[in-house]
Amino acid sequence: MTSSKVSREEKGPIALELAKKQKSISVAEFFEKNRHMLGFDSLPRCLITCIKEAVDNSLDACEESSILPDIYIRIRKVDDKMLNIVVEDNGPGIHKDVLPRVFGKLLYGSRFHAIRQSRGQQGIGISAAVLYGQLTSGKPARITSKIDSKLPAYMYDLKIDTETNEPRILSERIDEFFTSKGTRIEIEMEAAYVRGRQSVLEYLKNTSIVNPHARFTFIDPYNERFTFERASDILPKKPVEIKPHPRGIELGTLVKMLQVTDIKKLSSFLNSEFTKVGGYTAENICREANIDPNMVPHDLSMDIEGVKRLLGAFQKIKVMSPPRDCLSPITEDLLKKGVIQNCNIDFIATASRPVNASRGNPFMVEAVIAFGGDIEREGKADIIRFANRVPLMYQQGACAITHAIERINWKHYNMEQPKNAKLPSGPIMVLVHIASTNVPFTSESKDAVADIPEIMDDVELAVRQCARELSRFLSEQKKALEARKKIRIFESYTKEVANALSVLTGKDEAHIEARFLDILNKKYSKFIEEIPAEDNAGGE
Amino acid sequence: MTSSKVSREEKGPIALELAKKQKSISVAEFFEKNRHMLGFDSLPRCLITCIKEAVDNSLDACEESSILPDIYIRIRKVDDKMLNIVVEDNGPGIHKDVLPRVFGKLLYGSRFHAIRQSRGQQGIGISAAVLYGQLTSGKPARITSKIDSKLPAYMYDLKIDTETNEPRILSERIDEFFTSKGTRIEIEMEAAYVRGRQSVLEYLKNTSIVNPHARFTFIDPYNERFTFERASDILPKKPVEIKPHPRGIELGTLVKMLQVTDIKKLSSFLNSEFTKVGGYTAENICREANIDPNMVPHDLSMDIEGVKRLLGAFQKIKVMSPPRDCLSPITEDLLKKGVIQNCNIDFIATASRPVNASRGNPFMVEAVIAFGGDIEREGKADIIRFANRVPLMYQQGACAITHAIERINWKHYNMEQPKNAKLPSGPIMVLVHIASTNVPFTSESKDAVADIPEIMDDVELAVRQCARELSRFLSEQKKALEARKKIRIFESYTKEVANALSVLTGKDEAHIEARFLDILNKKYSKFIEEIPAEDNAGGE
Repeated sequence: MTSSKVSREEKGPIALELAKKQKSISVAEFFEKNRHMLGFDSLPRCLITCIKEAVDNSLDACEESSILPDIYIRIRKVDDKMLNIVVEDNGPGIHKDVLPRVFGKLLYGSRFHAIRQSRGQQGIGISAAVLYGQLTSGKPARITSKIDSKLPAYMYDLKIDTETNEPRILSERIDEFFTSKGTRIEIEMEAAYVRGRQSVLEYLKNTSIVNPHARFTFIDPYNERFTFERASDILPKKPVEIKPHPRGIELGTLVKMLQVTDIKKLSSFLNSEFTKVGGYTAENICREANIDPNMVPHDLSMDIEGVKRLLGAFQKIKVMSPPRDCLSPITEDLLKKGVIQNCNIDFIATASRPVNASRGNPFMVEAVIAFGGDIEREGKADIIRFANRVPLMYQQGACAITHAIERINWKHYNMEQPKNAKLPSGPIMVLVHIASTNVPFTSESKDAVADIPEIMDDVELAVRQCARELSRFLSEQKKALEARKKIRIFESYTKEVANALSVLTGKDEAHIEARFLDILNKKYSKFIEEIPAEDNAGGE
Repeated sequence: MTSSKVSREEKGPIALELAKKQKSISVAEFFEKNRHMLGFDSLPRCLITCIKEAVDNSLDACEESSILPDIYIRIRKVDDKMLNIVVEDNGPGIHKDVLPRVFGKLLYGSRFHAIRQSRGQQGIGISAAVLYGQLTSGKPARITSKIDSKLPAYMYDLKIDTETNEPRILSERIDEFFTSKGTRIEIEMEAAYVRGRQSVLEYLKNTSIVNPHARFTFIDPYNERFTFERASDILPKKPVEIKPHPRGIELGTLVKMLQVTDIKKLSSFLNSEFTKVGGYTAENICREANIDPNMVPHDLSMDIEGVKRLLGAFQKIKVMSPPRDCLSPITEDLLKKGVIQNCNIDFIATASRPVNASRGNPFMVEAVIAFGGDIEREGKADIIRFANRVPLMYQQGACAITHAIERINWKHYNMEQPKNAKLPSGPIMVLVHIASTNVPFTSESKDAVADIPEIMDDVELAVRQCARELSRFLSEQKKALEARKKIRIFESYTKEVANALSVLTGKDEAHIEARFLDILNKKYSKFIEEIPAEDNAGGE
């Protein structure tokens, strides 16, 4: 038997040969080869992605520690293709035991398992920037962090070992010059600094709009300094971590939860492991599923049909919507402030939707429409997208926000929309913010939201609400314009009519003219005040 | 000192608390939470993604082992939401030592590090299907494989342990009933079977077009059987694994190669580790970079400036294009056969571009334009996209192929293109195949190609070449139509003219008429033959 088996293996079925080639791929190798999936493709985008990941981390850390963020960004040209990028914050700092992995290991982080809104979720972003930096410059990233004013600052030069996806520390020392608390990262990479659309300045402007409590200082490669001041001194309310909501939980997840829990009674398990499931609801769910509420959860985990019935009961028994405090919306008031501080406009409307859930993840949509002023008049509407207070700078065409806006017939709202065009044209800006405990991005680069129907519906409703206000504004503006035209015609004849009346009645001409103008002013003052000059009407 | 340090840590900077929350995230956990990135979002798409991943693996394995693929796909309804999916092939089988990881571990595979064309590259696809199956059905996947007719078939029931990203085998036994060599996978998952666009049938039809050497048998949930026969009995030439091409290699990758090589002389290193770099070219590169060709590669790896000069020399010294044999294009001939076997059309043109490279990855573009016949007349052009012989079924709007086609002004090619429309309208189908050693997909779901300028340019050129032929066909068709109209008018007067001539000349009327028709036939026969009926002209 044995010898015959050996001889068979010596002849070798092809499968044997193929089996030898099978091997594990480290996640760092994978993303080194597929770095465009992380947002590192064109040179201008590489710069934006790097800065965005560093700033995301800084803002998250500051807010977790109740610190008003003060973030410094500096870009220096090394040579034709290479940039040196520094991002420094006044955050809590990162403890030296975890620091190397935070920056030098993909899929390492603190926010992946928590159900609450945060910018970073994946534990990939900043390590991806380190990975891309070493790939294109050959140099390590330099990170300095100080966690307490009385402790020294530690400085690390580190790379990622792509074969193991573990940090490789090239040097580690105390930095005497780093005096304030916070974290500083310095990376050299192939990247390009551009101005205009999809630039660092645009990114910072938009970040400033949705983070009115943060201050940004930016030094560009030409040594010019830009400051984005905070519009508010109040920190946003810290989002609270919650348990999963029963609606939208998946069978496999539920099985895993039943397997690992220490709780010995199903109804208690439901009550304590899910949000918004009280004792009464837990009993109701068990009854609907026809399962003994005293059953041991682990036993149920081995009965797939039972778990399926439990899942069915989750959908049938009414459970309250997930709580709002796991989210940190910007609020309409601050959105308005943010937009007005950064843009010169004639009109603004805001809307926000109630908290909703998709696949068990609470989310909330806020929208703004701004019109006129300095907004570009030619071409189609500007869409400005945000998720969890982060501007989405790329892949507009692949995003649920864009798709929802494109479903709207803008002619109903007094806007121009050329035939076959998906967006309205004119000086209009549509801004949408999605806040969620788990934004369903289409890829790791986190630039576009996937087409989840519930999210698209809420985006559409919020934008429509703003559009209705815009429509009223536009039709009033139109009325005002017409009234103003009438006044002008009237005015141009006042003198002659006054003269004719003076001849007929023998009264003083100047007096009659003054009376005329008086009447005009009273009747149309509303329009005269509202429109300082005709060329402000816009949109036509 | 020590006590003061302890007291500080007791007070606890916030960073300490935050550090405790930092932890590793397994790649399986990551993709369980972000399964939409792998193509598991809507229910119909989940089905397509699962079948696609299984079929990709089967086709790759068969071709690697020089077997004409014979693939069986069966879908059965379990309940309202759940489907049971089976894919079975006649491939080489998978050795039982590696089988559990091939199906039960993400980022495990044989093709990630090889530079040659293959469908699977990432070692994610089929394990993702297993992951999604267990998440939604709670059940393991069942895999059976036989690698030699004389060895037994092994059957595994397995799940993925998401916390460790390792397979968990629930049962393992010999399957007496599995008699033929090959691999069979059975997965139960939440999914939906639909017909029409983006359906399994469309996927199989398109797969059949670009894999004319494969046979597919499909049993749908209503027990209806569909067979897609092979159009060719010849296996495509097996793509050859090559070394990286110096153009497009990145600094970090070059540093790593210099570090790990055993070769002691730089010029020999260049000669043996890169494709198309001969001894003479290697010397030239060293001279251009001003580096001693006898230098030890490992020493150079520590001199970043030197490596940068070497990289610069790679761009300056002319190196031949990468070889074509790492690619497996379909060829124009087989593309034509595939399209004609599957679609009823009036016109077809094909084009293929020379091998090109982007970031060191060889690629090649093939295109087809088909017109008329049964192609939908209303609405815009059908775009059918392929990468490495796999149809891309989703995210058409996010794909470089679409973007390249949209750059073309179709009016120049006698096609209708409504104002603001990005695509032509009429009964036209544009098919594009990209073959590459590393297709730059926008995400792990592998449904859209990233906008790489070199790829877009080649797509545009290939499509334009077909469009020129279409344009000639359309203008000839138009000419023919006009000629045919003339003939009809002429014909309708023939009798009267013949009669008049007969009266004038005294000759036989029937004879004169016959002569007339004779002349007509000779002069316009080309048009009469080409257009059997006027309504076939299409496109208007």
